[in-house]
Amino acid sequence: MAPVCIAIIGLGGVGKAFLNQLATLKLQTTSRPVVIFASRSSKQIYTKNYDSVDATTVDSSSSPLLSLSDLTTYLGGAPGKVILVDNTSNQDVANAYPSFLRKGISVVTPNKKAFSSNMQLWDDIFNSTSPSALVYHESSVGAGLPVISTLKDLVATGDQITKVQGVFSGTMSFLFNTFAPVDGSGKGKWSEIVSQAKDAGYTEPDPRDDLNGMDVARKCTILARLAGLKVAGPDSFPVQSLIPKQLESASSAAEFMDKLPQFDGDMESYKDNAAKAGKVVRFVASVDVAANEVKVGLEMVEKDSPIAALKGSDNIFVFHTKRYSSSPLVVQGSGAGGEVTAMGVSADLIKAIERLS
Amino acid sequence: MAPVCIAIIGLGGVGKAFLNQLATLKLQTTSRPVVIFASRSSKQIYTKNYDSVDATTVDSSSSPLLSLSDLTTYLGGAPGKVILVDNTSNQDVANAYPSFLRKGISVVTPNKKAFSSNMQLWDDIFNSTSPSALVYHESSVGAGLPVISTLKDLVATGDQITKVQGVFSGTMSFLFNTFAPVDGSGKGKWSEIVSQAKDAGYTEPDPRDDLNGMDVARKCTILARLAGLKVAGPDSFPVQSLIPKQLESASSAAEFMDKLPQFDGDMESYKDNAAKAGKVVRFVASVDVAANEVKVGLEMVEKDSPIAALKGSDNIFVFHTKRYSSSPLVVQGSGAGGEVTAMGVSADLIKAIERLS
Repeated sequence: MAPVCIAIIGLGGVGKAFLNQLATLKLQTTSRPVVIFASRSSKQIYTKNYDSVDATTVDSSSSPLLSLSDLTTYLGGAPGKVILVDNTSNQDVANAYPSFLRKGISVVTPNKKAFSSNMQLWDDIFNSTSPSALVYHESSVGAGLPVISTLKDLVATGDQITKVQGVFSGTMSFLFNTFAPVDGSGKGKWSEIVSQAKDAGYTEPDPRDDLNGMDVARKCTILARLAGLKVAGPDSFPVQSLIPKQLESASSAAEFMDKLPQFDGDMESYKDNAAKAGKVVRFVASVDVAANEVKVGLEMVEKDSPIAALKGSDNIFVFHTKRYSSSPLVVQGSGAGGEVTAMGVSADLIKAIERLS
Repeated sequence: MAPVCIAIIGLGGVGKAFLNQLATLKLQTTSRPVVIFASRSSKQIYTKNYDSVDATTVDSSSSPLLSLSDLTTYLGGAPGKVILVDNTSNQDVANAYPSFLRKGISVVTPNKKAFSSNMQLWDDIFNSTSPSALVYHESSVGAGLPVISTLKDLVATGDQITKVQGVFSGTMSFLFNTFAPVDGSGKGKWSEIVSQAKDAGYTEPDPRDDLNGMDVARKCTILARLAGLKVAGPDSFPVQSLIPKQLESASSAAEFMDKLPQFDGDMESYKDNAAKAGKVVRFVASVDVAANEVKVGLEMVEKDSPIAALKGSDNIFVFHTKRYSSSPLVVQGSGAGGEVTAMGVSADLIKAIERLS
């Protein structure tokens, strides 16, 4: 049987870590996959005859650029089964998944946008799937943590998901674990902690991209849909933005950071109110399947709850189900970063290769 | 393509829950599997022509009994690919896995004994594996919790496991969470708590089968081997038994329970020593891959550690790896019971069917 062919889009932080893992992947099958296409920004490497290419040399490649549509045609003509590994967070690439899948090309990706945009794209992706065109996206939520696979296993074996709750953002986790730790010590004003996190690289270059809650809302959308809720998109349910209304018009990240200290009192009062109730404030995502309610925002949580006990920038996913009713199934750990995101992609790739070989 | 055939051994608590889940399994493939053999104690149901049988009617079946060797031959002649689902904890059945696998029959099972006995059986099982004879055993450790799959994914994608640690027994978890809770409240003497747990069905009928630590040692053996250590068996490393030496010769569970109160002082002093160090005592399993050291026994753990914070009868698995070095990957929840054990089996069955279809 011809070896499985791999096409890689995106060779940034995740993509580079993925390439390293691919080189040493422990596969049960005898046939190692062959990389026939790789792209990075405006460079691509491939050959007309689907030869094996060295993705690390993409920058010096002179292959003519293929559009996404050209790429679909190109990969559709490959001599073996093809897996597209999309390591970007690009909406255009995500929108092209149904075209790839209809050509029998499988998709393995951490790209959240494919699964958290409109329902039409979701349906097109999962209705295009045939036994020869698989879709795996473990790293779209919680990076390498077993979140998507666990939720899918619960649903597929007939468990009833009651609620999925947790802290789905490493940035939010770090900010609140530092701002309002369980022992009440608190390590500074809100704006100072945001500033420290930004300097340490724990936030996006523009911290507003974390503070608006949309990254968490996208993850919620994916989990809600897998649990069976028809969620129209990440802006179709309540998401509390931590960008003060008066700063929504700030023209730059710098202006935002300059003015943020004026609003420290707001966050301080959230913290104080929680403390008065014997609780701590956290940025919690909640998919309540029983009540058909999805929401993201500040909540006061019990000090002895697993969510409150979180440390550093860990994510936590708490699955309440019929089978796990007396105590929930919990998955916890680092939910961001090139290595662990690539790990989810690589593990998915192994599963896809095992099914296609 | 002929549908996948399923042979089920064991229709007790796990087996019955599995049958219920099998009836409503959500499969991506179009072909539903067909049950061609089922057995329970000394009853078996099957037909010469590999027809579909109703496993729930096994008790009224008059099919002549097949030995394990006969069964291997019978299943080897089936018209389609066969998956053996072993829901027992039987050593003889486990010993027959290599024979089944060599005939191209896949195995899905929660049976710990297959993977925690001597290395020869382990090697025979995994060296017999071919692309058409798969082995899945998620529920052999932590029931339906994603423990085996997570560890395998970490290893297969090239992460380096440093240490796997935790509380791997629901019974031990309950006993110590009740005896020595973090808040110091303690709910009675050790022997009283063992007695309560026995009455509530949280222990084996003979509590010594939990207290000897061998169940945890078997799980440790499996995880250690998956992490790359050559562990000869569950009696090849230090396992602390909580059966007092003087009671090892007790002739019955009743005699053991009668005399256990005489040794409450021993457990009380473990608890007090931990309290003096600002810690709590827990029954901890530890696979230290870096140091090539496996052990099971009482440990003093920090009060703010995830192991100390465990509640009820939850299991916890803490994976320290190179990628998850700043904070470990943690999986937590109920690790025993028919429904959640069957869930791990069913989820494995889906994966096997997807690969064989």
